[in-house]
Amino acid sequence: MRTLAEYAKLVNERLADLLPKLPEGSYVEGEMPELLVRSMNYSLLAGGKRLRPSMFLAALEMLGGDAEAWLDFACAVEMIHSYSLIHDDLPGMDGDTLRRGRPTNHVVFGVGQAILAGDGLLNGAFELMLGRALANGGDARASLRAIREIAIGAGVTGMIAGQVMDLHCERNGEAGEAAFRYIQRDKTACMFIYPLRAAATLAGADEAKIDALGKYGEYFGRAFQTVDDLLDVVGDSAEVGKTLGKDAEQGKLTAVSLLGVDGARKLAQQQCEAALAALEGFGPEADFFRNLMRETTQRTK
Amino acid sequence: MRTLAEYAKLVNERLADLLPKLPEGSYVEGEMPELLVRSMNYSLLAGGKRLRPSMFLAALEMLGGDAEAWLDFACAVEMIHSYSLIHDDLPGMDGDTLRRGRPTNHVVFGVGQAILAGDGLLNGAFELMLGRALANGGDARASLRAIREIAIGAGVTGMIAGQVMDLHCERNGEAGEAAFRYIQRDKTACMFIYPLRAAATLAGADEAKIDALGKYGEYFGRAFQTVDDLLDVVGDSAEVGKTLGKDAEQGKLTAVSLLGVDGARKLAQQQCEAALAALEGFGPEADFFRNLMRETTQRTK
Repeated sequence: MRTLAEYAKLVNERLADLLPKLPEGSYVEGEMPELLVRSMNYSLLAGGKRLRPSMFLAALEMLGGDAEAWLDFACAVEMIHSYSLIHDDLPGMDGDTLRRGRPTNHVVFGVGQAILAGDGLLNGAFELMLGRALANGGDARASLRAIREIAIGAGVTGMIAGQVMDLHCERNGEAGEAAFRYIQRDKTACMFIYPLRAAATLAGADEAKIDALGKYGEYFGRAFQTVDDLLDVVGDSAEVGKTLGKDAEQGKLTAVSLLGVDGARKLAQQQCEAALAALEGFGPEADFFRNLMRETTQRTK
Repeated sequence: MRTLAEYAKLVNERLADLLPKLPEGSYVEGEMPELLVRSMNYSLLAGGKRLRPSMFLAALEMLGGDAEAWLDFACAVEMIHSYSLIHDDLPGMDGDTLRRGRPTNHVVFGVGQAILAGDGLLNGAFELMLGRALANGGDARASLRAIREIAIGAGVTGMIAGQVMDLHCERNGEAGEAAFRYIQRDKTACMFIYPLRAAATLAGADEAKIDALGKYGEYFGRAFQTVDDLLDVVGDSAEVGKTLGKDAEQGKLTAVSLLGVDGARKLAQQQCEAALAALEGFGPEADFFRNLMRETTQRTK
């Protein structure tokens, strides 16, 4: 097992090499147009903690899998995350013009190309995983299962479902607890749950371990979102690294809008405890995940 | 082997049952939000010839595969086609408000939900194929290969690449032959080439047959696009079933804008002949594809 920063470094190095280097403006049959490479890389290589792919790799190694061999799956998880941010920033969605201190993708490349850059990252994630699974060989059925787990996490009962409800509630001022719980799970937690399940599947773990890691992913993801909601209200802008107070401005349904600051703090604590409880069947090898959960919750203290 | 209409009927019946039937406005954890079902089905069930999935099924049966067993793969091909139309119609892309005589997806559901309906259809196509491959069992490696073929056709060296170049040329008034050839292959032909290759792969065909069908798909797709370009200029609006003259209005790079009407007619004929030549290694069992190619080219006479 390595540190979060070491996994993130692995991911960053591979991401930088993922798309072809092409002369500006080139388009050759059978290759990507250079414009598409540039617009995908603009967002994919914009930094970020690489939390989801790093946790994928950590889970894989914890269960005896080979992180280097399946690094492309981690990169695919990050590509899916990156596409979701590009589409989320578009006019008609959140309509954001800045992300991580830089103009958003559609501001630089135009709305049409940004839609296509997002589509390219989503579709490209599957191209990458399918190609890697075939190149690695081994148990093809386990590969199918693992790719399916990631597809479900990103999909119509996962992240996309969460985005649909998030947008719907924001537009219609809906603010119930059921919608809040649905959005927390689907929009945020699913891209932790299912990549962790995929990692455990690739490592050959038994169903009980796959389910336990998925359960951890659910509560980790929920806590992560609750903390994000809290930091948007009580955080320090420089420390958090983004403009704060945006949720209330956009009328988002968040832990704070639903429960207030104290209620949200209590919720984060409960979710942290549930995540730790999910790991009870694991020994010290799961300390990586225990520590990550505790540190995440600590950020609002 | 069945007729095109019989394959299309199979596809339509399965598509109608694909997404869950849910009470209006419902959202239950682990299920799709009903709003997402409605917005995806609005475009997916809007009719159309179901040409790509029907050709997929015909290729599968021609080579001894089981069309019913892999019907979900055909539906996935249509889901990808449907997503591409939703995103193509968006403001910032073509900005169309009508398709097949009905308001486009974003006019009905709003831009944000339409983006997500498209994302849902693309991601959902992979969820469907991966689930079907696991349920069917059999050769998991062949399934991985077949899904990868479809991913490549839809992907960053396929359909998305073609859309990027199409939009780029339209916005920048580029009109060279290289760009035209690139767009014809990637934007249109790739979603014939690669689903046909996937069908042959699932049927257990040898590499020579997979390549031959892919080659047919390339020239069929190119001819199909050339004919579409021609009909936009010389077609009868009632017969073609859509508003004509749009390409010139939008400044699209088409066979007609590049070669004129006579030149485009000649090109369609050449492409038809190349498609037929690609089938030389097949006997009468490939007459389905030969006839389809001839009928498609006849439409401009």
